[in-house]
Amino acid sequence: MSAVIECVPNFSEGRDRKVVDAIVAAAAAGGGKVLDVELDANHNRSVVTIAGPADAVLESAFRSVRKAADLIDLNLHHGEHPRMGAADVVPFVPLAGASMADCVSLAERLGKRIGDELGIPVFLYGEAARTPARRNLADVRKGQFEGLREAIGRDPARKPDFGPERIHPTAGATAVGARFFLLAFNVYLDTPDVSIAKKIAASIRESSGGLKAVRALGLYMADRNQAQISMNLVDYRITSPAAALEAISMMAAEHGASVTESEFVGLVPRDAILKTAAESLRIKEFREDCLIETRIEAPPS
Amino acid sequence: MSAVIECVPNFSEGRDRKVVDAIVAAAAAGGGKVLDVELDANHNRSVVTIAGPADAVLESAFRSVRKAADLIDLNLHHGEHPRMGAADVVPFVPLAGASMADCVSLAERLGKRIGDELGIPVFLYGEAARTPARRNLADVRKGQFEGLREAIGRDPARKPDFGPERIHPTAGATAVGARFFLLAFNVYLDTPDVSIAKKIAASIRESSGGLKAVRALGLYMADRNQAQISMNLVDYRITSPAAALEAISMMAAEHGASVTESEFVGLVPRDAILKTAAESLRIKEFREDCLIETRIEAPPS
Repeated sequence: MSAVIECVPNFSEGRDRKVVDAIVAAAAAGGGKVLDVELDANHNRSVVTIAGPADAVLESAFRSVRKAADLIDLNLHHGEHPRMGAADVVPFVPLAGASMADCVSLAERLGKRIGDELGIPVFLYGEAARTPARRNLADVRKGQFEGLREAIGRDPARKPDFGPERIHPTAGATAVGARFFLLAFNVYLDTPDVSIAKKIAASIRESSGGLKAVRALGLYMADRNQAQISMNLVDYRITSPAAALEAISMMAAEHGASVTESEFVGLVPRDAILKTAAESLRIKEFREDCLIETRIEAPPS
Repeated sequence: MSAVIECVPNFSEGRDRKVVDAIVAAAAAGGGKVLDVELDANHNRSVVTIAGPADAVLESAFRSVRKAADLIDLNLHHGEHPRMGAADVVPFVPLAGASMADCVSLAERLGKRIGDELGIPVFLYGEAARTPARRNLADVRKGQFEGLREAIGRDPARKPDFGPERIHPTAGATAVGARFFLLAFNVYLDTPDVSIAKKIAASIRESSGGLKAVRALGLYMADRNQAQISMNLVDYRITSPAAALEAISMMAAEHGASVTESEFVGLVPRDAILKTAAESLRIKEFREDCLIETRIEAPPS
């Protein structure tokens, strides 16, 4: 398999299936492979997962953004999730064989096309940000569609990286960026006591001085009557699922609880599984080409 | 990827590279993919790993056996490893999407072709054995080439499953069978004291009442000045590398030692890595199609 890029555009439509279907069809026609589509009615937002070679994914992302701009009017959009554009945020993520630099370059190419061809202002964020102030998506999206509409031509700090210095009247503005793969990983405790899960989450999350590259919440899952630590591992190379689980197991024991089960939410890169297995088995290095299947699929040497 | 079969024929030539190259070329021409070739000069034996769809692997195996019969004369063969044929033993192993029944059927088809077309007596062994007495390869190969030559027409217990009831004058006899994938897994201790490794190996190996489907030896590795537990996991679904490592870690601690590192020898099936990661993370079920790469490679639905 050659270098694979993932792109996960978020669109400001999570209720009208027909609109989302049209956006997905546009994405698929670009040549990238649509792996997943999630609609969230409360957020009134959908998330499409596209993967494939760089140029195909770029074309799919562009076509999906164009279709969203045709079909979604931000003036009519309401939902719980903050948003500023029809295509609200478009991150590129490096998968097998791809680098972050590849993804930054794709973000720049896509941003330029959206600005030039669709007349939508584009802000580069995450690893593609050109200033530290734009690394964090929440800062870029501050004020949302309505606030940005006022600020964009006046406040020099809100000048877009590509496209016009005014908001698109219906499609708003789009954040395009690059980031590492985000693993959603949940761990269940053998207790319904959510206070234990909250204490554990508070001590492992990076923002309170816990494990690096970990975001965590303590939740009560009514369907199981169990407390859960719900995590986003924003760089599993820094804190792996195995390391997070070990920390949780130790802290749970201090509270007289223990872990019953874990789960990933969504798709997982093979690399994360290889690293987990290698870490668990204390193997110094485990490369993809130690797998029989990798050898079978390799082109003849 | 459709169902994949592995075949690991062992040939009685480990010194003459040209002979082995010719056997490998014959295997490759059959349509299976040659993943690995190992020559052992002391054993005067080579091991070829072929993989691919069933029919291609069958054809590759047959052609390699035929070439070995052309080029190797058992009357001139000497080496430390017991052997009875030019192609000494040919196991089929189920990989992704394949079953043991598939492999037993392949062993029967290959055995019949070797017997009918090459005039070499064939004994089915392992999961393909037709009697319990032939499950164990060592029993099938008892007396080796020279002993079997005397016994084969006289002792009804040595009647081959396919082919003539006499040894092939130069190519001997061949054992053809089916078995599960064998994982070679080594664990290093933070001590040079081989007696600790030997004690641990003795308590974990199945033959002394330890872990099921585990063979283990305690060794001293001079290059590292470390004791090692060297294992064959003959069915990682029964005892996984993670389970073996955990048992070793606990026993090492009782001797005041600990594990520094592990390693696989040779190629590893992806399924074994997925199972290891799932077990370590306490994930109930982790299927291949939870991997992004599996979705990317899947045919369009």
